[in-house]
Amino acid sequence: MVKLRDTGNPDRSPSSYRLSGAVGRIESSMIRDLLALADRPGLISLAGGLPAPESFPVSVIAEAAVAVLTGNVGGGALQYSPTQGIAGLRAWVAGRHGVAVHRVTITSGSQQALDLVARGFVGTGDVAALADPGYVGAIQALRLAGADLLAVPSDGDGLMVDVLEDRLRRGRRPVLVYVVTNFDNPTGATMPAERRSALGGLAERYGFVVVEDDPYGELRWAGSAPPAMATYTERVITLGSFSKILAPGLRVGYVIAPPPVAEALVLLKQPVDLQTATLNQRVVLEVLSRPGFLEAHLARLRALYARRAAALATALHDHFGPGLRFTPADGGLFIWAHLVDRSVDTLEKHTAAIDNGVAYLPGAGFGIDGRHRQELRLSFSAAPADQLDEGVRRLRATLAGPVPLRPRS
Amino acid sequence: MVKLRDTGNPDRSPSSYRLSGAVGRIESSMIRDLLALADRPGLISLAGGLPAPESFPVSVIAEAAVAVLTGNVGGGALQYSPTQGIAGLRAWVAGRHGVAVHRVTITSGSQQALDLVARGFVGTGDVAALADPGYVGAIQALRLAGADLLAVPSDGDGLMVDVLEDRLRRGRRPVLVYVVTNFDNPTGATMPAERRSALGGLAERYGFVVVEDDPYGELRWAGSAPPAMATYTERVITLGSFSKILAPGLRVGYVIAPPPVAEALVLLKQPVDLQTATLNQRVVLEVLSRPGFLEAHLARLRALYARRAAALATALHDHFGPGLRFTPADGGLFIWAHLVDRSVDTLEKHTAAIDNGVAYLPGAGFGIDGRHRQELRLSFSAAPADQLDEGVRRLRATLAGPVPLRPRS
Repeated sequence: MVKLRDTGNPDRSPSSYRLSGAVGRIESSMIRDLLALADRPGLISLAGGLPAPESFPVSVIAEAAVAVLTGNVGGGALQYSPTQGIAGLRAWVAGRHGVAVHRVTITSGSQQALDLVARGFVGTGDVAALADPGYVGAIQALRLAGADLLAVPSDGDGLMVDVLEDRLRRGRRPVLVYVVTNFDNPTGATMPAERRSALGGLAERYGFVVVEDDPYGELRWAGSAPPAMATYTERVITLGSFSKILAPGLRVGYVIAPPPVAEALVLLKQPVDLQTATLNQRVVLEVLSRPGFLEAHLARLRALYARRAAALATALHDHFGPGLRFTPADGGLFIWAHLVDRSVDTLEKHTAAIDNGVAYLPGAGFGIDGRHRQELRLSFSAAPADQLDEGVRRLRATLAGPVPLRPRS
Repeated sequence: MVKLRDTGNPDRSPSSYRLSGAVGRIESSMIRDLLALADRPGLISLAGGLPAPESFPVSVIAEAAVAVLTGNVGGGALQYSPTQGIAGLRAWVAGRHGVAVHRVTITSGSQQALDLVARGFVGTGDVAALADPGYVGAIQALRLAGADLLAVPSDGDGLMVDVLEDRLRRGRRPVLVYVVTNFDNPTGATMPAERRSALGGLAERYGFVVVEDDPYGELRWAGSAPPAMATYTERVITLGSFSKILAPGLRVGYVIAPPPVAEALVLLKQPVDLQTATLNQRVVLEVLSRPGFLEAHLARLRALYARRAAALATALHDHFGPGLRFTPADGGLFIWAHLVDRSVDTLEKHTAAIDNGVAYLPGAGFGIDGRHRQELRLSFSAAPADQLDEGVRRLRATLAGPVPLRPRS
């Protein structure tokens, strides 16, 4: 592994490198390491949060690529373009969210937006709050920026804002609070309106900024979405992505922020990557500009994931009965499940599951303060519906502890 | 502008945001602001370091995009892919540079590689050395990481390694030394072999790492290239880019580093943007895999830029005579010129030049410690050869100080 800073001896051996403290603050995500195992042939993966590749609008994207390339004799789609993003795509995002264009910055996926926000707000030792369990990419970006993480427990309604309020009353002062408001990763929870309102009130009162990450909100097939965080406070930064609604391999996302923050994010993005790929921005804009395409495509995605979510829920009921607790999904890509049998450890069982031909993500992979050893994240997005039953059968065979599980009658 | 950290009052107004110290360390590049002015119709720009858009292999890239999209029924070109880059492209880079594949990481342009290296090596207050004048993207990335910049003067042979050695002897201890070894930005200088060898020796002796940025090396039409820095030391990180040899709007670059450093860079890239766009990597690999394409394309680029460089040199001789000193280019995209008349300030004259219908970049925009007020960077890449003479005529009309300039006989 990496050797950390060994200052001092100028005659050190050529194989030693003085790396910065930043490298020491992060470690390779356990989840990435586990996902690498989930790549075996024959294995049914309930692990990765990958969108279904058969849902990608391949021909529409190919046509758009040809259109933007051949439509610009000056090679405009291949030239450098502004750091904040191309005007047309910024305008599209602004229109979709009902905000002024100068609040919008196009980013290289919403992960980059998260990193820019972390760098823009978090100095070494600053407190940043987020739900535990939490999105690994957020935990890593905040840690890399030097954050002291304030882990707030979450329940079926997402981050527990009353617990956060209690920590604030006791004197903790986060510079930001990160939340995935719709179909949270990993818990699948959607934060209800009252809780969002309370969080907005705390942001105003304690002067932190709410970072609302919403890559899954468009993937809702049941119920209705609570209002966005911007309804409750101006102290909000919204992260969006085309990864889950078009394709992740394009790496196009965006961040909407109050003007002074937007200006700072563009300033930070200059030395980070100059700009997001011009070609990809042009292609995304071209695809979004096809009359009727996006709504029809979203309808197809919702139908596809609703079918798979239902198949997964049925399989879990059938094979685990009351041995596994979970809330069926109204949207998004995964569910979070709790094993009733407290003697079974999902992290320990992971290797056995792989050997049995099924992959899942153990709760421990998402933990900050908590261990989440009886919990696991199950994705229904990447495996076809007809494989889900067999996958869950293998899962049941792996996780069945000493207490017999009652099959559903 | 951005309000910096105003900690304290929890009842601050909603429009104030507590931004981190990182934001305060950088400022919008003067050059970006000046380039924004160079976008007027009718203006002849010698300012931007943009590749010639008519040189982009548009149809080859369009065909490659269609091939990689339609050739993958699983939508592979649109799915997530590994942080370190797709295997085929890493292997291509490794083959081209004669290094092991595990040293190669694909990045979102070489600017991202620079930012990752800065984050990986530079902690707040660490010393990083580079040539003055220097590449603005490097100055910004290093400052953002918290570097204390050690500005080393440069001459026609690039960074003055003897001056660097003197600073090292006096006790300065950079963690890295950044150099553009071939056709430097902004000076156009190529560092000769002896100086590279001396720099390599200092890296070994003082334990710093040499960051060799080489986006322009393939654009050589005269003379021969000195050996790469890796010839002289193992303590080297090489940054490469497809921006100048294919197209910048693809945002695909790479970094080659010793294995422990490569491992750290991948770790850092995870929270930064997860990965570089899969589609763009596949497209670049597809284009590079066309038999004979790259060498033929490079030959065309070299011929194009050689023609423009010659036209610029002729025009400068014709209009300025001995009033302007510069070294004709053997490659790259620009030259660095010195006005003999010390009463003329290229920064002050910039607005007048724009009004006269020509844009250039004043030396001051590249300064770290130095002011470079009699110097300017002139790019020959973006303006067609037949516009260069008229552009230089306007430049001469703007910059002609009280001392009459002798036209070439």
